[in-house]
Amino acid sequence: MRQSHLFTKTRKENPSDEVSKNAELLIRAGYIHKEIAGAYSFLPLGLRVLENIKTIIREEMNREGGQEVFMTALQDKSIWEKTDRWDDAKVDNWFKTTIKGGGETGLAITHEEPLTNIMTGFISSYRDLPRYAYQFQNKFRNEARAKSGIMRGREFLMKDMYDFSKNEAEHNEFYNKMREAYIRTFDRLGIGEKTYVTFASGGIFSPFSEEFQTLSDAGEDMIYVDEKKKLAVNKEVYNDEALAKLNLKKEDLVEKKSIEVGNIFHLGTKFSVPLGLFYTDEKGEKQPVYMGSYGMGPSRIMGTIVEVLSDEKGIVWPTSIAPFSLHLIALYKNKDEESYKKAESLYNDLTAKGVEVLFDDREASPGNKFADSDLIGIPMRVVVSEKSLTAGGVEIKERTSDTSEIVTVEELFKTYQKNCE
Amino acid sequence: MRQSHLFTKTRKENPSDEVSKNAELLIRAGYIHKEIAGAYSFLPLGLRVLENIKTIIREEMNREGGQEVFMTALQDKSIWEKTDRWDDAKVDNWFKTTIKGGGETGLAITHEEPLTNIMTGFISSYRDLPRYAYQFQNKFRNEARAKSGIMRGREFLMKDMYDFSKNEAEHNEFYNKMREAYIRTFDRLGIGEKTYVTFASGGIFSPFSEEFQTLSDAGEDMIYVDEKKKLAVNKEVYNDEALAKLNLKKEDLVEKKSIEVGNIFHLGTKFSVPLGLFYTDEKGEKQPVYMGSYGMGPSRIMGTIVEVLSDEKGIVWPTSIAPFSLHLIALYKNKDEESYKKAESLYNDLTAKGVEVLFDDREASPGNKFADSDLIGIPMRVVVSEKSLTAGGVEIKERTSDTSEIVTVEELFKTYQKNCE
Repeated sequence: MRQSHLFTKTRKENPSDEVSKNAELLIRAGYIHKEIAGAYSFLPLGLRVLENIKTIIREEMNREGGQEVFMTALQDKSIWEKTDRWDDAKVDNWFKTTIKGGGETGLAITHEEPLTNIMTGFISSYRDLPRYAYQFQNKFRNEARAKSGIMRGREFLMKDMYDFSKNEAEHNEFYNKMREAYIRTFDRLGIGEKTYVTFASGGIFSPFSEEFQTLSDAGEDMIYVDEKKKLAVNKEVYNDEALAKLNLKKEDLVEKKSIEVGNIFHLGTKFSVPLGLFYTDEKGEKQPVYMGSYGMGPSRIMGTIVEVLSDEKGIVWPTSIAPFSLHLIALYKNKDEESYKKAESLYNDLTAKGVEVLFDDREASPGNKFADSDLIGIPMRVVVSEKSLTAGGVEIKERTSDTSEIVTVEELFKTYQKNCE
Repeated sequence: MRQSHLFTKTRKENPSDEVSKNAELLIRAGYIHKEIAGAYSFLPLGLRVLENIKTIIREEMNREGGQEVFMTALQDKSIWEKTDRWDDAKVDNWFKTTIKGGGETGLAITHEEPLTNIMTGFISSYRDLPRYAYQFQNKFRNEARAKSGIMRGREFLMKDMYDFSKNEAEHNEFYNKMREAYIRTFDRLGIGEKTYVTFASGGIFSPFSEEFQTLSDAGEDMIYVDEKKKLAVNKEVYNDEALAKLNLKKEDLVEKKSIEVGNIFHLGTKFSVPLGLFYTDEKGEKQPVYMGSYGMGPSRIMGTIVEVLSDEKGIVWPTSIAPFSLHLIALYKNKDEESYKKAESLYNDLTAKGVEVLFDDREASPGNKFADSDLIGIPMRVVVSEKSLTAGGVEIKERTSDTSEIVTVEELFKTYQKNCE
């Protein structure tokens, strides 16, 4: 894409109403726009990153047999009354509103209830199990405060997967697969090294749930990390009894702040029983379906990546989710120059090869172009200038490197294939 | 995908609470689930169709320079007050709710206001124009009644494109391109022949807007069609003065019921002036940006296709948006049989070639399998049975045809390429 056509622009000043680094940088670079506190629109660059994150997550969910759905935000109150999660005294972050035709509705905070209800129409026998369904969908939560940018929103994108299993053993088998899928996903998203499987409080069906916590001073969670075992425990279960069960020792644990980027949870029969999701087993007996839930927030992950990987110059995207693979910059005074023409033909050639290129064809100073490029954070920068052409080619520089080198166009294609495919 | 793994099932009975054909068929075939009146979840087959529709629309919007964004449902009241569209006395279909931290918000009925507001941060000079932005996003409208299935929802997916132009001439140039893009899109979606460019009431900036109306007795609109000119006028502008302006004659017009599947609209400076979207022109003078809006509802289009193309046996999807390209059916009594083994190896081969196949590997009677296949509506059915193998291959039948033929597997691959690529 030609940067001269892109409707967003960078800005030098931080927005006055943001305190989080992720919102500051993403707004300055033109990725997002704040609508109200805790609700951000995704602009062209931002949507590209979000879609790249979704693609990786989707591949991992499909690989484990997940079937993708897309559910509504508007909720049927009667379903939530069955699990006693409609009452504001029980669940305090609903956005509720009235329907003109009569009645009350709310905006889904999560989707255990409606999906369990849907499944009652399709699951009746052990032959119908197990089943796995997931979606990418905007959740709404009426938070009292929202100061963490896109890391905690009143409206935010969530990937929520659910399993419907015959019994605890079948559920556990899937739960263990999902733990591995989550670890693979965070690796592919570029935050694997900083992300810890973290034991947190469970429910009536299990002593623990597991969270995926990414180390960051911007985090709202406090965890205790065993770096050798690559495990952690959340502060809420940091006690002698829990540590003994988990075979962890206090002296091996270091206190760290962190961001919860995902969680996997044993739901047991908490939703199937009140919502009537039963099946007939091999012996003809009626049994409740055994469930689990698996959450991951693509927009929160995007914010987390900005928090943990950016530097003083701006954002640093991992190659796997960058809005473009290459930032091609033409330095020129007028478009008749060889440097502009070479850059343009390189842009056309790369695009024809399927490489995603942001082409800075704007009339702007080199200083402005480099500053914008660092702020936007595309992993590889390619400069075409009179100087680079005299030196025999184009100047390439990785976003995370301080040094650049001159390569020929043929070498660029090779380097691209090495780094970006 | 193996049909034995698909979590949805077909049902024989119509849902008791639906009156529209699209909702009846889509629910019976397992495409959608009604959450509340006017709000439907998309199940695996339904989401596949919806995504195919979005892909076609996205390609056409990108081709005209559209930049995709994704905006929030939650709205900043103060922006809507500037255009006087917050007051329930002026706009009567808001869902409104309160924010816990203080203040009121509403769920976006459309996005002219927030997008115009965003553009004030990026457009200041004639050099920044024109710009085109669009999104696929769920709108919310608090309708008094919702009885048309997914054709009129309280929560529904919308593609909304907007242009930001220097003046009326530049806007009109884009508007005309979008008319062509819409015609191409409806052709690709399989409803081009039944869809008419229809003149409807304009606004203060133009005598007419244009709607895209698909002929159907299930429609809520009444239009007057000139079949020779492939044009129509909406009842709301069916009067002598308008017909004279449009150079249409009453005697050439036939009254028809129809469904509005898209519209293109001249907004002029209606939003830019109150929201402060101005630019400095070549002479240094301040000018309001000239706008247009271009709407198209993917979920309504899906419902419309079911209304106009289905038959007494079920849904008939156009190849371009079908959930799968082929419905492969194995007829067998037990899985040791040659017919099952052949079907399975065919499924593996087709899938490896990138063909999207729904494989009916279930233990069910031929009658049930054929009825399900007709209801689900995949354009081509391929049956592998003892009978077909004895006859020398597999039996293929188009969904819209009454006759089948036996072809070899090699011929099937050829036929697939002819029909489905």
